Amino acid sequence: MFDILRFIEQKRDGRDNTTEDISTFVQGVMSGRVKDYHVAAWLMAVYLRGMAEDELLAFTKALATSGKSVSFGSGIRAVDKHSTGGVGDKVTLILVPLVASCGLSVAKLSGRGLGFTGGTVDKLESIPGFKVDISLSEFERQVNEIGCAVAGHSPDLAPAEAFFYELRDVTATVPSLPLICSSIVSKKIAGGANSFVFDVKYGSGAFMNRIEDARELALSLVKLSNKMGYPSSALLTSMEEPLGRWIGNAMEVFESIEVLQNRGPEDTTELCVALAGEMLLQGGLVSSPEEGASMAKSSLEKGLALRKFRELVVKQGGPEDIASNPSKYLRPSPLVYGVISGTDGFVSSVDTRSIGEGIRRLGGGRSKKEDSIDPGAALEVMVKIGDRVENGDTLMRAYSDDPSSVDSAKAYLDKSWTIGDRAEPPKLILERVE
Amino acid sequence: MFDILRFIEQKRDGRDNTTEDISTFVQGVMSGRVKDYHVAAWLMAVYLRGMAEDELLAFTKALATSGKSVSFGSGIRAVDKHSTGGVGDKVTLILVPLVASCGLSVAKLSGRGLGFTGGTVDKLESIPGFKVDISLSEFERQVNEIGCAVAGHSPDLAPAEAFFYELRDVTATVPSLPLICSSIVSKKIAGGANSFVFDVKYGSGAFMNRIEDARELALSLVKLSNKMGYPSSALLTSMEEPLGRWIGNAMEVFESIEVLQNRGPEDTTELCVALAGEMLLQGGLVSSPEEGASMAKSSLEKGLALRKFRELVVKQGGPEDIASNPSKYLRPSPLVYGVISGTDGFVSSVDTRSIGEGIRRLGGGRSKKEDSIDPGAALEVMVKIGDRVENGDTLMRAYSDDPSSVDSAKAYLDKSWTIGDRAEPPKLILERVE
Repeated sequence: MFDILRFIEQKRDGRDNTTEDISTFVQGVMSGRVKDYHVAAWLMAVYLRGMAEDELLAFTKALATSGKSVSFGSGIRAVDKHSTGGVGDKVTLILVPLVASCGLSVAKLSGRGLGFTGGTVDKLESIPGFKVDISLSEFERQVNEIGCAVAGHSPDLAPAEAFFYELRDVTATVPSLPLICSSIVSKKIAGGANSFVFDVKYGSGAFMNRIEDARELALSLVKLSNKMGYPSSALLTSMEEPLGRWIGNAMEVFESIEVLQNRGPEDTTELCVALAGEMLLQGGLVSSPEEGASMAKSSLEKGLALRKFRELVVKQGGPEDIASNPSKYLRPSPLVYGVISGTDGFVSSVDTRSIGEGIRRLGGGRSKKEDSIDPGAALEVMVKIGDRVENGDTLMRAYSDDPSSVDSAKAYLDKSWTIGDRAEPPKLILERVE
Repeated sequence: MFDILRFIEQKRDGRDNTTEDISTFVQGVMSGRVKDYHVAAWLMAVYLRGMAEDELLAFTKALATSGKSVSFGSGIRAVDKHSTGGVGDKVTLILVPLVASCGLSVAKLSGRGLGFTGGTVDKLESIPGFKVDISLSEFERQVNEIGCAVAGHSPDLAPAEAFFYELRDVTATVPSLPLICSSIVSKKIAGGANSFVFDVKYGSGAFMNRIEDARELALSLVKLSNKMGYPSSALLTSMEEPLGRWIGNAMEVFESIEVLQNRGPEDTTELCVALAGEMLLQGGLVSSPEEGASMAKSSLEKGLALRKFRELVVKQGGPEDIASNPSKYLRPSPLVYGVISGTDGFVSSVDTRSIGEGIRRLGGGRSKKEDSIDPGAALEVMVKIGDRVENGDTLMRAYSDDPSSVDSAKAYLDKSWTIGDRAEPPKLILERVE
């Protein structure tokens, strides 16, 4: 019989919990028989003792199957993508229609953000009429019909994951590798996809600052997914500076459309094509990431990805002319401030996290769940690391509905830029992990 | 400002919590601002990371001062004694009047037992009329008047200690040295005594089976108490076999009176005299434990300790003739069973814990808080380790009100005795720790 104290003791003493006990434990959490304090003590023991591979598989499975699961019709192979998040990261908005336009289904469940800007769901909501709160059966139907859908996370999927996450958040046990991986992968599994691609970011604006930590996370995510039966790969990508030209909800959608029109910023386009290549490979449509990337490139060139984007937006309630007339719907708030270089030199580094704090303060992100977001709040990034700048050049422009927010944003934005000696632009895609 | 997450993180990462934060933390626990899951995560981090000396002092102080404190009049120096508990351990019943009869105040707050037999409070309640539920002010007054009192723990004293203990109990964090020590010492401090003596037991019937663990606990308790300003010492004593001849609530009081009459079992008497010597030393009445022991011995010989016992019992509501006619009040339940040796040889070892389980099943102890106790349930121990026995000799007699309990008790009692080769009796008092 399951004994919660013996279960905690095992982990405390560095012994492994059994697969059966882990499953009973998670069920007990959901039924209320296992209490918050039991979970808190176990989480801290996991944080300090780690998890063996069998434990990690069992825990991930128990989370993934703790509620409903999305399930597409037989014959549908769907892929999902997860990013560890960064500043100006609008990649999901592009990848969903891009990969779908290549003939692979993309099933994307996404959260609202508590980060610097909103999450994918918040960004899409800056398109008038766009509806992200669709039911799981609508979500399944739409993936079957047009090959892609984006919806907000349903509380019915992997509810245990949400419960554990909330407790980790208040017990100082968030940054634990097995807990991070089980959380991410279990949600992906419940979301119905058959394979995953991870975009793991490192650098000044990423969850993991150090390359080694990001690499360890990427390896763990790919290994766990593969062991669970979901073919996966990861790219290790730079968040040493913001991605693309725009940061902020509406303007990130705007830039996404530019990429889909095949005239977006180079870095955003490069990253999307590479990730699309991985997704097409994991989905079994191509036999190498390079082949996948050129398939994606050609879809951009032929306008197929843009057409799929329009189909997706219209299907989910947005305007018909979104792709042909994006600036009708997606505009920045008034210009309130420019960050000016006070010297000649080169952009040698960017404190990307500080830029993220700046956009949050301009109204583009939330500090608390209840906060509302100004979709037009934006930062326009004029220069990249390695660029030559002169005294008086504008490095970045700030847009906001709320001029009173400028002072607090300024404190972050002004100190974000280091102008100094010649510097090499960081490599955007450092390596792939399979 | 105090940040509970930063506080847990510090301990998680092996850094020290500050004295000020620990105090705010304990206050937050009592006010409800700090939640059970915070405490559970912190307890597990303490279990796995330990506590530095400053942290231990701060935590002990915060627990000790979390509610009311007992305080005797100026000029009163009171001593308290703590035992880690064992089978047949009736020492407190004897020490309280014995030490008081030597002129040192003894303030004894004691719990109800969840152990093999009841606690001191349960044992005293087998004396008809004896009242242990006296108020803190009555307790203070009685110590002032007659030099000793025994009362049940008040929930008003060190309430945070009780809270932390309850959470430790359900989070697998009980056996942590700093948590054990802070718990014991904080309760002693709130109980109003100025110095403490610890009886730390090792062996088959003790909380600590191994001598080294018991020694570490004894050292930690003494060190912590001294650092907190309470002169203390400890004896490391054997629980390799039950103490004295009787186990069970009423019959342990009976045996205590025999010791106070100076005709009790040798081992019980020896231990009481030694502990009394330590208490008189820590209380400042003598300048060596030997001097204290001979003072105690002389009090037993002159009948002063017995007279003080009678005074204590009468003061707390018991009968006048308890000391002269104990068997009128303290009798075993009917004899139900004898453990018989099936072979010739020597008593070579005793599974004392198993004997404890036996008396519990005969009705002498509780499994749950709500269980009632049969005061007459008893075990009479006829032989000691090293004794020569013959086939058919009775090793132990069992007494119970409930003949149906015999079968489950038998399973424990029969296997408790090992008759084999000649064995040395264990040393009762192994060493003193100061």
